[in-house]
Amino acid sequence: MIPAMTPMKPLRSLGLTFDGERLLVLDQRCLPDEESWRDGTAPDTMADHIRTLAVRGAPLIGVAAALSLACYAGTGASVGDLRAAASRLRAARPTAVNLTWAIDRLLRAYGDEHGGDPDALRSEAVAVFHEDVALCEAMARHGAALLSDGDGVLTHCNTGGLATVGIGTALGVIRRAWEQGKRLHVYVDETRPLLQGARLTAWELSRLGIPYTLQTDSMAAVLMRAGRVQKVLVGADRVARNGDFANKVGTYGLAVVARHHGVPFHPVAPYSTLDRSLATGAGIPIEDRAAEEVRGAAGSFGRVRWSPEDARVFNPAFDVTPADLVTALVLDRGVFTREALGAGALGDL
Amino acid sequence: MIPAMTPMKPLRSLGLTFDGERLLVLDQRCLPDEESWRDGTAPDTMADHIRTLAVRGAPLIGVAAALSLACYAGTGASVGDLRAAASRLRAARPTAVNLTWAIDRLLRAYGDEHGGDPDALRSEAVAVFHEDVALCEAMARHGAALLSDGDGVLTHCNTGGLATVGIGTALGVIRRAWEQGKRLHVYVDETRPLLQGARLTAWELSRLGIPYTLQTDSMAAVLMRAGRVQKVLVGADRVARNGDFANKVGTYGLAVVARHHGVPFHPVAPYSTLDRSLATGAGIPIEDRAAEEVRGAAGSFGRVRWSPEDARVFNPAFDVTPADLVTALVLDRGVFTREALGAGALGDL
Repeated sequence: MIPAMTPMKPLRSLGLTFDGERLLVLDQRCLPDEESWRDGTAPDTMADHIRTLAVRGAPLIGVAAALSLACYAGTGASVGDLRAAASRLRAARPTAVNLTWAIDRLLRAYGDEHGGDPDALRSEAVAVFHEDVALCEAMARHGAALLSDGDGVLTHCNTGGLATVGIGTALGVIRRAWEQGKRLHVYVDETRPLLQGARLTAWELSRLGIPYTLQTDSMAAVLMRAGRVQKVLVGADRVARNGDFANKVGTYGLAVVARHHGVPFHPVAPYSTLDRSLATGAGIPIEDRAAEEVRGAAGSFGRVRWSPEDARVFNPAFDVTPADLVTALVLDRGVFTREALGAGALGDL
Repeated sequence: MIPAMTPMKPLRSLGLTFDGERLLVLDQRCLPDEESWRDGTAPDTMADHIRTLAVRGAPLIGVAAALSLACYAGTGASVGDLRAAASRLRAARPTAVNLTWAIDRLLRAYGDEHGGDPDALRSEAVAVFHEDVALCEAMARHGAALLSDGDGVLTHCNTGGLATVGIGTALGVIRRAWEQGKRLHVYVDETRPLLQGARLTAWELSRLGIPYTLQTDSMAAVLMRAGRVQKVLVGADRVARNGDFANKVGTYGLAVVARHHGVPFHPVAPYSTLDRSLATGAGIPIEDRAAEEVRGAAGSFGRVRWSPEDARVFNPAFDVTPADLVTALVLDRGVFTREALGAGALGDL
């Protein structure tokens, strides 16, 4: 039996739309040259999209997984099937904690010990969407105050409207400061191996009309030495209680070179990125990805390889930056300096 | 009038062959999947090969330019034409000083004030070839002593048999230590944007049977933090009197992360890389290259682009590492510690 859906106002973001029945996601692997939307209504299809990075960005994958589970609950799926689908979604990407956070929240709302309430689950998924928009606004408000007129701001990976359903985390902060009239120039790390900076952040900044320059990840230190970077802003996929955090691989090296040059370094994340079960970053699981990603590149042009085809490869998707390299962590709840992190401020949230 | 060529023993290296009349170079842009040899007998053709990086590597471009000038002198070119061709070769790549060093040496041997002697010029070009082989051996001997059994050695760009006509600079050191029976593992930075590590160094190591792992440039810091890197070895394109040196972009950031982790950092270069006219690295001209290189990648597969097509790009081909981040500089003349560099040891060479 398929329960009747309550009509709802469609949900739309830069990379996701949901009309109450059909959930579509923008295939981020094809950007910037092609805007292809894929159906992600079924949780297993959505898990594939998440695994293959058609859908990526820690907050976005949480929202996308939540809405696909809501669709599935609406088809009359059994409690067992729903829990199994939730497990497969959780396993799609192990490092970002937002995915598990969103799914756990939905299952609590569903209340399967009492038979399960698909409408409650759907309301919670919609609430997760709206909350993500509000969290982005709160991060932007706190973070924008850290940026000054004339700043060069360097960023890594993509943390904007494509990584969330709001204006973004680190890139949302930059956008808000720009909208406040601060003249900024954004330096975009291309972010090998998957090139989220070159493909996605450059595309977003171009749409927003914010001036930017694209560079290879290895050039960030050169820009800092030349005095062209006043702040580094990045996202986060999981934050431990002491402020250590996992983010896209390359973030740790960037934190080291920022420290060497005395450039303030700020991760930006919603509270849903906190993993209170971890005392330090040492316990964060790091996803290793396919060698093919480092042996070449893929995009709307297809896949190319430039290394020997049997090259042995190191390809962790994330790295962990210790809190002592953080100048201040920007959360939706406020700005936490290195000293505050060291004093255990995140444990009290 | 075309003077008779004296028969000679052919010169051969991994990326260049010269039979006394025809000079061929391996097109390094097509490696590792295609081994295409191009004629570079005419200096202007060779200048094109150097500019487009079909031929690259500071020592190799010096030798290749020298041999093409020798061929040109052998055709009975006038003093004026020879000097003009030499100028065009010099201008092909401005940062590496070996190119200018080799050309100046040939013109001195030619002795154009006394009418010019093409045979003397050719002998000098052949001497430059053989000297490069010997310089590589000397660097390898000094440098191999710095590596220990069991070391993980991280390197950037390509500094092997493709970058010289001998066994290489930094990669020659690694090869010699391996041949001495030291068990090493080489970590190869892919070296964006032109991927000399992924394409060339991986190919060379594979041919030599030396175990290696390929990683993106942004992962070097992760490997160091994990304790997998005991030494960093890189090449150099120009060394100032105080030990500051220019090398492939990304070297500077690598030096910063090596310092942070206490990993010894060694540039390796022949004495022809020294520019005694420069007191510090501040005077080294840095070549800016085309935006297209950062917007995508090229190889035997053609050219692909993944960023927005109008993305503004930062693309210096080289960066400058200050001597205070150098543990010791390996020259053919010996090993110069940071302290020796600081005391002006290079000025006395």
